[in-house]
Amino acid sequence: MFRNLSYAACALAVGIKNQFDNPQSIISSENSLTLSRLNLERCLPQVKASGQECQMYVGDRIKRAVGFPQLTACCKPLRYKDFIISYDTKNRIPNWVYEHLQYYKFYKDDPCDRRANVCPYKEEEGRLHGQEKPKFHPDCRIHGYHRADVRDYCDSEYELGLMADPANYPFDAEACAETQVMTNVVPIVPGFSCGPWFDLQCYIREKLVRENKSVYVCSGPLFLPCENDGKVQMKFDVLGEGEVSVPTHFFKVIIIETHDGNLELESYMVPNCKPDEGEEVKLDDYLTPLCQIEHASGLIFFPEKKVCFTSNNKRRGARLHAL
Amino acid sequence: MFRNLSYAACALAVGIKNQFDNPQSIISSENSLTLSRLNLERCLPQVKASGQECQMYVGDRIKRAVGFPQLTACCKPLRYKDFIISYDTKNRIPNWVYEHLQYYKFYKDDPCDRRANVCPYKEEEGRLHGQEKPKFHPDCRIHGYHRADVRDYCDSEYELGLMADPANYPFDAEACAETQVMTNVVPIVPGFSCGPWFDLQCYIREKLVRENKSVYVCSGPLFLPCENDGKVQMKFDVLGEGEVSVPTHFFKVIIIETHDGNLELESYMVPNCKPDEGEEVKLDDYLTPLCQIEHASGLIFFPEKKVCFTSNNKRRGARLHAL
Repeated sequence: MFRNLSYAACALAVGIKNQFDNPQSIISSENSLTLSRLNLERCLPQVKASGQECQMYVGDRIKRAVGFPQLTACCKPLRYKDFIISYDTKNRIPNWVYEHLQYYKFYKDDPCDRRANVCPYKEEEGRLHGQEKPKFHPDCRIHGYHRADVRDYCDSEYELGLMADPANYPFDAEACAETQVMTNVVPIVPGFSCGPWFDLQCYIREKLVRENKSVYVCSGPLFLPCENDGKVQMKFDVLGEGEVSVPTHFFKVIIIETHDGNLELESYMVPNCKPDEGEEVKLDDYLTPLCQIEHASGLIFFPEKKVCFTSNNKRRGARLHAL
Repeated sequence: MFRNLSYAACALAVGIKNQFDNPQSIISSENSLTLSRLNLERCLPQVKASGQECQMYVGDRIKRAVGFPQLTACCKPLRYKDFIISYDTKNRIPNWVYEHLQYYKFYKDDPCDRRANVCPYKEEEGRLHGQEKPKFHPDCRIHGYHRADVRDYCDSEYELGLMADPANYPFDAEACAETQVMTNVVPIVPGFSCGPWFDLQCYIREKLVRENKSVYVCSGPLFLPCENDGKVQMKFDVLGEGEVSVPTHFFKVIIIETHDGNLELESYMVPNCKPDEGEEVKLDDYLTPLCQIEHASGLIFFPEKKVCFTSNNKRRGARLHAL
């Protein structure tokens, strides 16, 4: 259940434990001692001294003395070559992964373009270009307590799913290999990546990227509660010693930059389950209001309110957060 | 299940929905059209132009164009008069609440000290000083999507528990009233606040604050998974339309600043349950290694590693993260 125990810290707590076999009695006996020592001469300067120290704001005092606790890498997103990840140290999966997809990175229209298609990795071509097969690897910027490991997924019914899709970097071996960093990995139900999620990825590459100037894609996990015997409950599996949370859903928020400089928005939510066999996937069934994704994820997608989504013939637009 | 729907955003999604009744067919028909339009003259300059634009790092491009999604108030803690809160927008409860407790704020040794004890609020004295009874109130810095409301707790089996304890501000009506802000509130099982949590609060005030220069206290909720039919699962209740998560445990990390300038650490974890009747509470049973709290909370308490805990006669110390 728990890896990387800090034995030094444990020893500290055990040390304290040994000293306080009966804390109540210590409190009462020592308090009376302390009280008996108090007298007016001693207390007056003490009150004044403390008062002076307190002119500094409480937050600054705490920050200076002990520092604030940090959710690692939550505020400062992790930078990779071609995508950005905000990591969720509580659930050991990303909060969100942001990509910026552009036509020229996917398609070769120039006959002089000599870029080789290196992703997905092909054994023979890889050897030819001296590239090793990408492996799942940890990001050492995340503290050992909060890292997921491939071993957490062993003996579980889940697979390693990738938020930043390697197929988005066909000509870039480095970016493609970086998608296998464990901060980009989420537990998915086997078959999930063949359902609407796959169709969504293809739709982005084959339609949106082809027809527009560029496309910003933000993907991430969601945890939605369910009703059980009249009680609303959150319930999800937790994997391995690293305690990796299995999301119930995933989202994709897509911002399309058109050739005429407008921004358009589409947002989707897909459940983390195997699609029914033979059923035709209709992507528009998964369209979800952005506010619903924002409510469930705890995120505000456009906090600076500088993004204005315009309408065109195809889609109706609206300025977000204009309520 | 869901409050404050952004109807503008919904309309946008519905608008898109209407346009894409059969996205697959649109993709195939329009792709062929796009492909047929491509020719060498058009593509070469396009590739070059995109290449120039891409000299900017992908993260900077995303930030400039659409901005990063934000977990509101997660990075920048919320400042109150006498405590600091990091708010968890996913669970609508605090990540942590930090207080700095000092002797002179609790005790009056100076006979000329005219401060009146205003907390907990007493009807008669309050009227005398023209103070209203503190009420639970929202913090408007938190987006409406992620705010908890008193109504979320109605018709539930849980009570409103306070992380920053009003009893820590006996002479400060403003700080005392501020503890009733909804960002400081967590759902607790009835009876929880009479068990070891209460003893811990008394121990901090009556022993640690009395005997030391000052005490830094960081309190917060935890979610621990449990084993169910050989499967490790996270399971907790979710309250009301605001979907407020009910934590399974709470922690207190206490840093004691002694009169000789040393810092000492004690860390506790208490389950969110009603204590067994008649059972004697032993605080040291709840002492928990800091690393265990850090693992479960996703927090690193001393990220700057500048805090050095010294040993003295009473407690054994250790430098944290020295592994």
